[in-house]
Amino acid sequence: MNIEILKKNKTFDGSTVIYEHQSKITNTPMKFSAFLPKSERIDSAIIWLSGLTCTEENFILKSGVQNYLQNTNTMIICPDTSPRGLDLKNEHDSYDFGSGAGFYLNATTEGYKDHYKMYDYISIELISILKDYFKVDKLSISGHSMGGHGALILGLREKNLFKSVSAFSPISNPTQCPWGVKAFEGYLIDSKDAKKYDATETLKDGLTRADSILIDQGLDDEFYPDQLLTKNLEFAAAKANQSLIVNYREGYDHSFFFLSTFIEDHIKFHLEHLKV
Amino acid sequence: MNIEILKKNKTFDGSTVIYEHQSKITNTPMKFSAFLPKSERIDSAIIWLSGLTCTEENFILKSGVQNYLQNTNTMIICPDTSPRGLDLKNEHDSYDFGSGAGFYLNATTEGYKDHYKMYDYISIELISILKDYFKVDKLSISGHSMGGHGALILGLREKNLFKSVSAFSPISNPTQCPWGVKAFEGYLIDSKDAKKYDATETLKDGLTRADSILIDQGLDDEFYPDQLLTKNLEFAAAKANQSLIVNYREGYDHSFFFLSTFIEDHIKFHLEHLKV
Repeated sequence: MNIEILKKNKTFDGSTVIYEHQSKITNTPMKFSAFLPKSERIDSAIIWLSGLTCTEENFILKSGVQNYLQNTNTMIICPDTSPRGLDLKNEHDSYDFGSGAGFYLNATTEGYKDHYKMYDYISIELISILKDYFKVDKLSISGHSMGGHGALILGLREKNLFKSVSAFSPISNPTQCPWGVKAFEGYLIDSKDAKKYDATETLKDGLTRADSILIDQGLDDEFYPDQLLTKNLEFAAAKANQSLIVNYREGYDHSFFFLSTFIEDHIKFHLEHLKV
Repeated sequence: MNIEILKKNKTFDGSTVIYEHQSKITNTPMKFSAFLPKSERIDSAIIWLSGLTCTEENFILKSGVQNYLQNTNTMIICPDTSPRGLDLKNEHDSYDFGSGAGFYLNATTEGYKDHYKMYDYISIELISILKDYFKVDKLSISGHSMGGHGALILGLREKNLFKSVSAFSPISNPTQCPWGVKAFEGYLIDSKDAKKYDATETLKDGLTRADSILIDQGLDDEFYPDQLLTKNLEFAAAKANQSLIVNYREGYDHSFFFLSTFIEDHIKFHLEHLKV
């Protein structure tokens, strides 16, 4: 496992690090960032999935998350949001498809099917890296917007991989919103595949977790409700007996300022589950 | 006083806001950011001066400062680092001169003298805005790198304006380092003017404060000591009987990760002085 450190910055007695490795799943180099607290016995990790247009850097630079992990045994790891360095058809034409917009699925369309396999990249390769390279075996998952969608589908479908699941402003029912429809049409040949990458549909299919899922959603979010469709997820969760806590936050929008305000709550939530 | 709000994001029960106004001093539109805690009786402000290449946004996005001001009566205000929207000779050719690199001085060279007057912009116009628009009268000042230089020269020369002064990784003796030499040559016709924009020279001239100045400096800072010359400042402070606390921090560099680690200490330092 050949993982290169591109940058390392001491932060709160720990380290913020940018890594790069050659992915066997996306067949491209992939980057991720991580914060490693000072602890000499880091035993657990939170996977953070970022939203549209982000790279591996945005969250670790802007969220302030290091402050809340500095005295724990838990690291956070933040992969990029798509393969990079390719030149596929339409890949760089818009912010909501292609580069920066991998949607955490395995693509089946021409060109994309050889690289845009972010579902497997996270659930297989990134998890091997966490186990073999970082030596951690207890994992939780969270994310924002498109990354909140990723956290929900991975957390529901690969439930045994994760101790807990949370999301900020997730794209909760992508088969029913413009972002998701566009992405799924571009990435998937067979429209029936779309359902398995949709958290609301996954719940309707009866895939649930025994633990509660935590969501924070700003009520002044410029993409709420049209792109996020949070209520559809709540409705499906209630029907499927999936415990779900949705905190609707008055006055907050879709930005990193919203994330930075409530990230401490989500970190605490995951730390509770990772302790067990 | 015509001040326009460009963007407002709820953050920790307060607001992160980007403002724009037409400056009578730089003769350009100028932007600044601010965090306003929820308090209904905000009575004091910290002026934050940013470093080379920064705009009004970098610090407020990346430092995590909102967390430490949320329950206080103190706002923070972060001006841009130069006038914008001009096309002066050499203005956009390099990262360390012209746009993004105003050096908090009043330029006297052709073209620049009509706009690059950041010293007066901060010490006169921004302070009027704080008094008249935000209704605060107790002020402190801090900054990073070029902004640390700005905080020191303004704090020493306009000492009655500020209750306290601090800096991260300041350019402490710009007349003796490459960044400062280049900037002062480009902005100042008369090289004798340079001394008054140099904190070490200002201390040598006997301008001191009664209170202690706080500095944090990373020892893995890629610009230390050559561009920062912290020891020259320490030496001049000792000779001038200026109380100065310099915390040298093992392993930390020049980045926002360093700032985000120690910003809480600086905020506490200023809050102590602003209480009085």
